[in-house]
Amino acid sequence: MRLTEAAIPTISEVLRAVADRGRALAWHSATAGTGGDHLLELAEQLLSERGEATSIALSLSILRGYDALDLPARRGWLSRLAVRFGPDLAALKETAQIFLQRSDEDAATRLLKVAEPRRQELLRRFNHAPGGTHALVRMREDIMGAVACDPALAAFEGDFVHLFTSWFNRGFLQLRRIDWTTPATILEKIIRYEAVHAIDGWDELRRRIDPPDRRLYAFLHPALGDEPLIFVEVALTTEMPSAIGPLLAADRSPIDAAAATTAVFYSISNAQRGLSGVAFGNLLIKQVVEELRRELPRLTQFTTLSPVPGFAAWLRDECANPASRVIAPQARRRLALLAHANWPRRAAARDILQRALLPLAAHYFLHARSSSGRVIDPVARFHLGNGARLERINPIGDLSAAGMRQSHGLMVNYLYDLNQVAANHEAFVGYDEVVTSAEVRRHARSIVRQFAREPSAKGSPKS
Amino acid sequence: MRLTEAAIPTISEVLRAVADRGRALAWHSATAGTGGDHLLELAEQLLSERGEATSIALSLSILRGYDALDLPARRGWLSRLAVRFGPDLAALKETAQIFLQRSDEDAATRLLKVAEPRRQELLRRFNHAPGGTHALVRMREDIMGAVACDPALAAFEGDFVHLFTSWFNRGFLQLRRIDWTTPATILEKIIRYEAVHAIDGWDELRRRIDPPDRRLYAFLHPALGDEPLIFVEVALTTEMPSAIGPLLAADRSPIDAAAATTAVFYSISNAQRGLSGVAFGNLLIKQVVEELRRELPRLTQFTTLSPVPGFAAWLRDECANPASRVIAPQARRRLALLAHANWPRRAAARDILQRALLPLAAHYFLHARSSSGRVIDPVARFHLGNGARLERINPIGDLSAAGMRQSHGLMVNYLYDLNQVAANHEAFVGYDEVVTSAEVRRHARSIVRQFAREPSAKGSPKS
Amino acid sequence: MRLTEAAIPTISEVLRAVADRGRALAWHSATAGTGGDHLLELAEQLLSERGEATSIALSLSILRGYDALDLPARRGWLSRLAVRFGPDLAALKETAQIFLQRSDEDAATRLLKVAEPRRQELLRRFNHAPGGTHALVRMREDIMGAVACDPALAAFEGDFVHLFTSWFNRGFLQLRRIDWTTPATILEKIIRYEAVHAIDGWDELRRRIDPPDRRLYAFLHPALGDEPLIFVEVALTTEMPSAIGPLLAADRSPIDAAAATTAVFYSISNAQRGLSGVAFGNLLIKQVVEELRRELPRLTQFTTLSPVPGFAAWLRDECANPASRVIAPQARRRLALLAHANWPRRAAARDILQRALLPLAAHYFLHARSSSGRVIDPVARFHLGNGARLERINPIGDLSAAGMRQSHGLMVNYLYDLNQVAANHEAFVGYDEVVTSAEVRRHARSIVRQFAREPSAKGSPKS
Amino acid sequence: MRLTEAAIPTISEVLRAVADRGRALAWHSATAGTGGDHLLELAEQLLSERGEATSIALSLSILRGYDALDLPARRGWLSRLAVRFGPDLAALKETAQIFLQRSDEDAATRLLKVAEPRRQELLRRFNHAPGGTHALVRMREDIMGAVACDPALAAFEGDFVHLFTSWFNRGFLQLRRIDWTTPATILEKIIRYEAVHAIDGWDELRRRIDPPDRRLYAFLHPALGDEPLIFVEVALTTEMPSAIGPLLAADRSPIDAAAATTAVFYSISNAQRGLSGVAFGNLLIKQVVEELRRELPRLTQFTTLSPVPGFAAWLRDECANPASRVIAPQARRRLALLAHANWPRRAAARDILQRALLPLAAHYFLHARSSSGRVIDPVARFHLGNGARLERINPIGDLSAAGMRQSHGLMVNYLYDLNQVAANHEAFVGYDEVVTSAEVRRHARSIVRQFAREPSAKGSPKS
Repeated sequence: MRLTEAAIPTISEVLRAVADRGRALAWHSATAGTGGDHLLELAEQLLSERGEATSIALSLSILRGYDALDLPARRGWLSRLAVRFGPDLAALKETAQIFLQRSDEDAATRLLKVAEPRRQELLRRFNHAPGGTHALVRMREDIMGAVACDPALAAFEGDFVHLFTSWFNRGFLQLRRIDWTTPATILEKIIRYEAVHAIDGWDELRRRIDPPDRRLYAFLHPALGDEPLIFVEVALTTEMPSAIGPLLAADRSPIDAAAATTAVFYSISNAQRGLSGVAFGNLLIKQVVEELRRELPRLTQFTTLSPVPGFAAWLRDECANPASRVIAPQARRRLALLAHANWPRRAAARDILQRALLPLAAHYFLHARSSSGRVIDPVARFHLGNGARLERINPIGDLSAAGMRQSHGLMVNYLYDLNQVAANHEAFVGYDEVVTSAEVRRHARSIVRQFAREPSAKGSPKS
Repeated sequence: MRLTEAAIPTISEVLRAVADRGRALAWHSATAGTGGDHLLELAEQLLSERGEATSIALSLSILRGYDALDLPARRGWLSRLAVRFGPDLAALKETAQIFLQRSDEDAATRLLKVAEPRRQELLRRFNHAPGGTHALVRMREDIMGAVACDPALAAFEGDFVHLFTSWFNRGFLQLRRIDWTTPATILEKIIRYEAVHAIDGWDELRRRIDPPDRRLYAFLHPALGDEPLIFVEVALTTEMPSAIGPLLAADRSPIDAAAATTAVFYSISNAQRGLSGVAFGNLLIKQVVEELRRELPRLTQFTTLSPVPGFAAWLRDECANPASRVIAPQARRRLALLAHANWPRRAAARDILQRALLPLAAHYFLHARSSSGRVIDPVARFHLGNGARLERINPIGDLSAAGMRQSHGLMVNYLYDLNQVAANHEAFVGYDEVVTSAEVRRHARSIVRQFAREPSAKGSPKS
Repeated sequence: MRLTEAAIPTISEVLRAVADRGRALAWHSATAGTGGDHLLELAEQLLSERGEATSIALSLSILRGYDALDLPARRGWLSRLAVRFGPDLAALKETAQIFLQRSDEDAATRLLKVAEPRRQELLRRFNHAPGGTHALVRMREDIMGAVACDPALAAFEGDFVHLFTSWFNRGFLQLRRIDWTTPATILEKIIRYEAVHAIDGWDELRRRIDPPDRRLYAFLHPALGDEPLIFVEVALTTEMPSAIGPLLAADRSPIDAAAATTAVFYSISNAQRGLSGVAFGNLLIKQVVEELRRELPRLTQFTTLSPVPGFAAWLRDECANPASRVIAPQARRRLALLAHANWPRRAAARDILQRALLPLAAHYFLHARSSSGRVIDPVARFHLGNGARLERINPIGDLSAAGMRQSHGLMVNYLYDLNQVAANHEAFVGYDEVVTSAEVRRHARSIVRQFAREPSAKGSPKS
Repeated sequence: MRLTEAAIPTISEVLRAVADRGRALAWHSATAGTGGDHLLELAEQLLSERGEATSIALSLSILRGYDALDLPARRGWLSRLAVRFGPDLAALKETAQIFLQRSDEDAATRLLKVAEPRRQELLRRFNHAPGGTHALVRMREDIMGAVACDPALAAFEGDFVHLFTSWFNRGFLQLRRIDWTTPATILEKIIRYEAVHAIDGWDELRRRIDPPDRRLYAFLHPALGDEPLIFVEVALTTEMPSAIGPLLAADRSPIDAAAATTAVFYSISNAQRGLSGVAFGNLLIKQVVEELRRELPRLTQFTTLSPVPGFAAWLRDECANPASRVIAPQARRRLALLAHANWPRRAAARDILQRALLPLAAHYFLHARSSSGRVIDPVARFHLGNGARLERINPIGDLSAAGMRQSHGLMVNYLYDLNQVAANHEAFVGYDEVVTSAEVRRHARSIVRQFAREPSAKGSPKS
């Protein structure tokens, strides 16, 4: 065993040493002016610099200077940088004219080069600095909130996504199981980034990763060190669960992993907001399925227990629409019970509402569409596009405040049947078909029957 | 300690499992036709595929199919692919016209997108396959020998370099010390790739990395596993060495590392021909210097012991030129002694030739230039551009057959003085000035004196 | 990167598999009777078993059966075992007689063998089971509370210590730096085992190990996995500290490690009660000193900030003794102020008490002795025996409830001067001399002066 | 990734630093006299030393001084040390008398303590020095060759074995798979220590560990670093092999590990001669079987391909005995063919000898016994005692010079059937029964029939 692993400099520290040395030599007053103007000048210098060490030192200085600004100043600076280091429109004009004369591939290649905004090379050079990749991910986070009102930033964001897509190429991701033997530096980030069912401190974290029937897998990238990109939490069970409460209960009794037949993906969290638009989740689930099958051959069912974040809003809109062809008058009366905060605990109300909500939820997934014609629910789009099947709707799935607010407590199971994912994916992506179990389709059909049954539906004059 | 680390699947194996599964589902006859046409069809399919697993499976099939072809077939296929997946010239034409009308950044961004040849996206997708990065590096090697006569391949090569530059961004490289505790998988590659002073088997490898006064450092990249990108061999000594023989002698006595004052970089080898044009060497030396300074604070001198690969050819050309203003008649007579294969071992000849060669070598570095106006020696260009100083010329440096052939046995020391590298770099890159020690300049000046002394020089008044 | 390191069986798991298999074959009813009698029978069987797998299985069964008993039952069982598997007194008698006849070394060797109680071989065999070492450490903990009243257990404890001393031979210990990148399994044990200044949860743990000016080093042993044996906490500072509060303050500002001149060992905790009597602390501090010197050459001072656990009790005894030659009447009046719980916060009382306590504390260390003639303070014995020097007494060092209770807030610094530890150790161990700074000796001398000054002392001529 | 793992001091180096420091302080002339007398004085000093650092320094000095002696001097010194630091016979006499009076356990415990030769404590202290364990293993090697003629050394050897048995307790061993990713430091030792089928350099080593159908597992111990204790080589095949040649052939085609049904243990090597008498092999095979079953569930047969080292010598003795009841006259005539060196390559001779040797070999295993009544073959004793079954005798198994010399080319397969090992072990160890296949028993019976058939077999007509 090595004596003091922590005493060895990481490559970043050595790079920092190189950079610090280069900086000391290359210019006197990196910190003299840390204002935006000065930083823009440094960026200009960086683009023309050919020495490696000096280039790294300049990058580091800019990133540190940037970090010292407050958010509005950072955004303002990025916006100015986006404009100043855009493509050279004059040169591009000339090159475009030449291309139009020649129309050959050489000219096209030249066009490609000239059309690239100088910002991209700048970002590449920032990335040479120690910690550069992480700094760029956070820089893009800064942009995200401001692109709507600033076209230059919007274009700049495109540069970030373009480069991130290349750097975070799926071939470079590393799947890692996170458990109680994982370093605390990574574990604290899991606590911080869990976005679906919040982890309340180290004791709860331990309950999620230490028992034999719990797993957590993350994608890491070598350049981000102990920052996970995305992670998924898994419960090993003996049946498809219908509610999240029992899965997370502090006092539940774990089972032996070898006795499990079902793997439940109950939480998927993107950890880096700055990497939005660079997709990993799709592959993560499939790799984890493979990994679990290898380790536990008795597993036969891979499913999720997922929230339905768009349901309550959709239902509210439907209810507000007197001409709704979805909510029959009788259902509307029943839904009034939702106003009682405590309904899931009152047996009669619960029975009525379960019967009322199931067909509506089935309809929500199968037939409701957004104005752009897409399935409304973002979680549904993710799993269906991923090749999963909507397997079951659980009316009393999540009684937490968040669960009640976004979906009146509904949760669903998406099923990953590896023999079907390719076909399901094709059906959803190619033909817009939502693949579901027969049971879900039956629930959806009952909407039609309800209208048929409703006396008021006949020639329905008023509704 | 883990029981059988080797039993765990690497991420590549899991990816392969995912890919194999995807493939089985996605199409029937991946191996039916492995001819070039079939592979081109698969590539077309790959570009339109949106499912992750299927996409990986397709990439894997194409890479395997490619691998099964022989070199001419591989090049032919790449050439066809380069043409077929080039930029969409018609669309680009249209976009260029729109840009010329609008001349705004939006249109420029659009132009950037359309100008990108479809090949680039194809390469990115190949890279998703397990082992994809390595396969692409080898694919580029296949291209390298053929670009001269095939413009499509030349353009394609540009795509490789563009993507490699992004993927092998210096921020992603990992410096690692290679020693006798390093896994054999990496060590065997060091033996294979050493390009300057060949390593003759495991015993010699051990002599290069195991003694306390020897070091070997390599850059690795996470996506290439145990394939080093570049590595440098270092000897720790008490003075700047003038010949390679004693450094590599099997029977030398090692010294204690803590007693060393000088670190000698005596071999730098690029391990991946397919990564030519993606520069790492510059940074490698500087990081190793930092690392050694940290570990051994007594080190005060960082130098190379380098070959002079272009000297003999240049001298031959000068000798062949009767009007040479470099080789005085007397020198020419002395150089005739070079014809005796054994001259370094005959004291008289050696003395004469040493005196004759030193001024010529100094001139070769300081004043001789290629037709494009550059310093002739590639090794000199590398170290001078890197900020080193040409410190000393050693006439009897390398008596091996290769050393005698390329430089009549000359070797040189380039000195890395960290307080001067920035200035030296600037002088060389910005002002084309070769920074040398006073001694080397003195040697160079003696050429002028020789001509002054020569009787034949008398009537020549101006020189 | 390996996919799921946690999925690989540790050697323990494989051993368990071997053991389980062996057990299944070897006997039917391991769990049939888990009572003490049954377990004693299994132990008998274990001693006569020659097959490896069966032997491991038997050990495992016994250890599990033992674990299932409650503490009184465990102690009872161990006591019976101690008696039953003691030395064979009849055989020993015979062997002793033979020895007395022959008096040669052969007979002595035979005596050594026969005198060994069968318990020792039993413990060795228990240790073959997976997790056996840890189980034995806990078994000895069970004994520790009961040896006083049970001579058989006392003898048995000697067997444990004998074997532990061999297994935990210092050559087998591994020094490891514990920081925020350490696996959580180890970190949680640090929280649990810290015995000097309790760690209140993960946030405080982080403050102790993550800032650049904090260190924690532990000794581990391969057979105990992630169970630390002993650990020391270190603060890097710019001067010798006089109070623990500022060192542990949540809101303090860390300094750069490279700026530190002083390393302060402010907490040393034995983590395994069951290993009492097997000493590690001595070596730990010296190794950590070496390690810190190597990493941070600017460190010039290595000191502790230590509690004085025996002071308050000793002072109480002295006060209760009207004939005390230590507490002069005037001092006695001043000490009455200690009764005011809040005295450290009242300036006048604090000044008076500081002046009163310093000489008494100095006397406590230098001259007070236990009935067996030893220095009273256990922490002092540890550090003085270790070669440290008592450097300074800090009257307001630890205002916590525990600190006030055990030492009226006093803390002391022991200084580790590597050029003196051998001599200091020799002085203390060989000549019973407490090595201190001149300042401490001055304080001690003032006791004598006090008595000289005291009116009441006048008539007392020689004493 | 860490920059230069190799730059971190191991615990040994730090200990060495501690030791060097201690030594410098503790005495002046460690190296003054390195003769045996001086070293004995140091040993005396070591036993009375109480300071940790000084104690380590003394140990180190003694071990270095020892190392500098030549073998005869080392043995001489150990012999003197064995005598000087034996048990205190006078004290032991007294203690024995007291014990005989009291006959209680207290007196027995005291006897145990006094009977321990001082050598044991000395060895324990040597073990504190960095590298001490390894030095002691080599020290015992030095003794091994000399114990026969020196009773003091014989007793001393007992001390080594006693301590090694404790330190190398099976609970502390680590099973590790050795493959081509293993550090070269370990691999070179595999080459050096392979004792059954020599490994001729790195290329052959690679053929033994790198192909998918080859495995090598070793036991390591934390205190011995990269020195393996014992290792086993495994071939994965589709049937029980009958000859070693094809298994080791350089040009064989590997199979997919997943296709294998049989694991063949074809070489087991003890790597540390100094650990003779501390048994590991037994457990190693069982753990490897478990490990392989886990990794490759299709494996159904675990077997060896083993040499028969004692057969040729036994056969020679039988032949030399005219009254042999094993070699019938006809068989004796046939065995004469063995004199032709080339017999395995001549079909007629081979057929005859195969038929002649098979029954004799079967008899050799089943009925032949040494003068002490044991099975003659040491390899057979190892595997049979381990619970394996003698499954098959292969007459043309090993045509190497060694194979022909020791067993006329015979090899055998021992079968490890995990459901039978306990019973087989019991049968062999408890009842001296050699468990074999029916086939082997049939061969053995034919010896009897041969005698029955022979005319010389008194009155027995023709059969």
